[in-house]
Amino acid sequence: MLDEIANRDKELGLFVHCITNYVTANDCANMVLACGGHPVMADSPCEVEEVTTGCDALVINMGTLSESKVTAMLLAGKRANALTHPVILDPVGIGASTFRLKTALQLLEEIKFSVIRGNASEIKNLYLEGGQTKGVDVGIKDRISKDTIEEACQTAKLLAKRTKTVVVLTGSTDIVTDGERTYFIYNGHTSMSKITGTGCMLTSVIGLMCAAVPKEPLKAAITGVTAMGICGEIAYEKMIERNEGSASLRVHLIDAMSNMTESTRKARTVMKEVGE
Amino acid sequence: MLDEIANRDKELGLFVHCITNYVTANDCANMVLACGGHPVMADSPCEVEEVTTGCDALVINMGTLSESKVTAMLLAGKRANALTHPVILDPVGIGASTFRLKTALQLLEEIKFSVIRGNASEIKNLYLEGGQTKGVDVGIKDRISKDTIEEACQTAKLLAKRTKTVVVLTGSTDIVTDGERTYFIYNGHTSMSKITGTGCMLTSVIGLMCAAVPKEPLKAAITGVTAMGICGEIAYEKMIERNEGSASLRVHLIDAMSNMTESTRKARTVMKEVGE
Amino acid sequence: MLDEIANRDKELGLFVHCITNYVTANDCANMVLACGGHPVMADSPCEVEEVTTGCDALVINMGTLSESKVTAMLLAGKRANALTHPVILDPVGIGASTFRLKTALQLLEEIKFSVIRGNASEIKNLYLEGGQTKGVDVGIKDRISKDTIEEACQTAKLLAKRTKTVVVLTGSTDIVTDGERTYFIYNGHTSMSKITGTGCMLTSVIGLMCAAVPKEPLKAAITGVTAMGICGEIAYEKMIERNEGSASLRVHLIDAMSNMTESTRKARTVMKEVGE
Repeated sequence: MLDEIANRDKELGLFVHCITNYVTANDCANMVLACGGHPVMADSPCEVEEVTTGCDALVINMGTLSESKVTAMLLAGKRANALTHPVILDPVGIGASTFRLKTALQLLEEIKFSVIRGNASEIKNLYLEGGQTKGVDVGIKDRISKDTIEEACQTAKLLAKRTKTVVVLTGSTDIVTDGERTYFIYNGHTSMSKITGTGCMLTSVIGLMCAAVPKEPLKAAITGVTAMGICGEIAYEKMIERNEGSASLRVHLIDAMSNMTESTRKARTVMKEVGE
Repeated sequence: MLDEIANRDKELGLFVHCITNYVTANDCANMVLACGGHPVMADSPCEVEEVTTGCDALVINMGTLSESKVTAMLLAGKRANALTHPVILDPVGIGASTFRLKTALQLLEEIKFSVIRGNASEIKNLYLEGGQTKGVDVGIKDRISKDTIEEACQTAKLLAKRTKTVVVLTGSTDIVTDGERTYFIYNGHTSMSKITGTGCMLTSVIGLMCAAVPKEPLKAAITGVTAMGICGEIAYEKMIERNEGSASLRVHLIDAMSNMTESTRKARTVMKEVGE
Repeated sequence: MLDEIANRDKELGLFVHCITNYVTANDCANMVLACGGHPVMADSPCEVEEVTTGCDALVINMGTLSESKVTAMLLAGKRANALTHPVILDPVGIGASTFRLKTALQLLEEIKFSVIRGNASEIKNLYLEGGQTKGVDVGIKDRISKDTIEEACQTAKLLAKRTKTVVVLTGSTDIVTDGERTYFIYNGHTSMSKITGTGCMLTSVIGLMCAAVPKEPLKAAITGVTAMGICGEIAYEKMIERNEGSASLRVHLIDAMSNMTESTRKARTVMKEVGE
């Protein structure tokens, strides 16, 4: 599908409107460009409705949240819904504050999302409508392992069913589910947690994939998750080979996406569908 | 001229006040530093007048615009004008919303600019006071080609005459004009459109060049455009040689600027003056 | 101590809440991750008290200051004080505007800091409660040299005594003092001034170190300053070896931190205690 997007780009291009945080906005924009799309970063209530009208998908990322951004998210989300543009939610750090949690719940109430992507703590918090994990990184007891993956998977499925969205729960194993069909994806590398923004970048990529196939959010999510995971593997290999560190990993990650093809993505995908 | 700036820097240094977007602010700051200047990023109405007073040029970049930033731009722009500091405008994505277009027109009304830099869609929108291109990237029908360059050139010249500024229209060929004298610059590489912020970075560099020769905005713009284009060529060569991707291109681009000398710039410049 | 932090991270992890500027936020987050910590970037008054409650240290960085951020800084700082979390101040560019200077003085008045880190101009401005340096980079007459180091050292010591904090004054020689004990640190490389954010990154690293040993801010500051300086040396060596430029330096700097060990840090530290 990455090639489809690249091809489509040659004619007209797909635009992804991102209302996002200032910490990883540059990485998100560069990642969308690396995939062959066009990012438009805009978060003022004065313009988000019009901006999102001119785009093909909307990504709502809750990092460095502010009251003004909440207003913008609601305005843009409703407009995108009215236009049947796919809307993707990244509930960054909703365990870190009541403000973020309440905002996420309000967004879920008022906006229809195609895909929600978060780590295990964020998805759990969203499902339980509150929890106790702090910060924006996954909480230790929520980390995906043999012991926790079943519960995480159930949570993701229940959230998907309740919200009628595709839920992407990322961790050492990634879970993608629409509540009916569920996939475990084994691509990626743990070193990706050593740089900020890998989750945000993935969410932006999924936004672009949804723009390409707006009626197939499950396919879009799987494509994004596998592509990103494979980029992580390639980046890690390069970092180790060259005896580098985490900042190089980030460079290699975006490099890998800019060189990714659909055939590479398919060849390297390690995924299984899991039963009910 | 890059060397002049580097030399002047040894004594005192040139300061460029940037009111800019949060997506590419880091790249803009690093690019100004790479050229030997000092960036000061500040956008609060509480301080921009004082900040710009202490600087040598002001760059107004309209990405991730907000109401507060508009206030700051007007305050800082008027102060810079009063002090005869050069002011440079980057009308990022003015086709994306009425808010941005109106702000750009208000800025043109109330502030005297030395240089305006945009892509073909942005310059056209500014000239026509509205258009239909979406997003922040150049619209497909506005892309610089054999078929479109004449019209783009005319638009740039007319905008330059009307606003009494130097207009820089960047694309596969860059156009620099003060309305009387017009230059086509052939440096640069199309791969630069695969990373965010090359336009913003160029605008910041032009801001620094204007600080060095405030009475010669045409010279400043040409120096900035050629230097940036050559950096793009060097970066592309390195990226291909090393089999890398778009994030490496960005690193090489800033690297190239930090190593750029006036003799390299002059030797590699490919430019022609075009008749009326 | 870097290893201690890394070890502790394996169990639970240390969280550093950063209220910081949008220019270098990504670098600061990546640097904290490179040290083995978890950054949480949040600056809305709606959530900073709760966010900081869930963290282990608070870093207040005054770059791209706004009225909303000042409110957030005061709220978070008081909460962190009530919880006896270490609070670290980076008075970025307080010579650039009255707004920044007044905010810094208000913060010093209302919040107890563990460490203050700035360049010679910033520390001098803070001590004298106003000055005349412009911009965010160190003023030429304040640059650390044989002629100025004694005065800078006295200023740092007096500020440390008056505010009962550890003061870190960074430059070609770094000065760390609690007002009683004073150290000169000779690690680092002048090329670090060619990229934006080295100061901000160091402040974030010191924040993480303080989280590890909250009762030993002097030790935390020395560890952070030496680690960062050594990373600068390693990064510079790599940049020269590979014939690169300033953007590569930034990548190597974070890479070096992600590979830093306590034994390397100790072996490469060049430091002396100076008498009263």
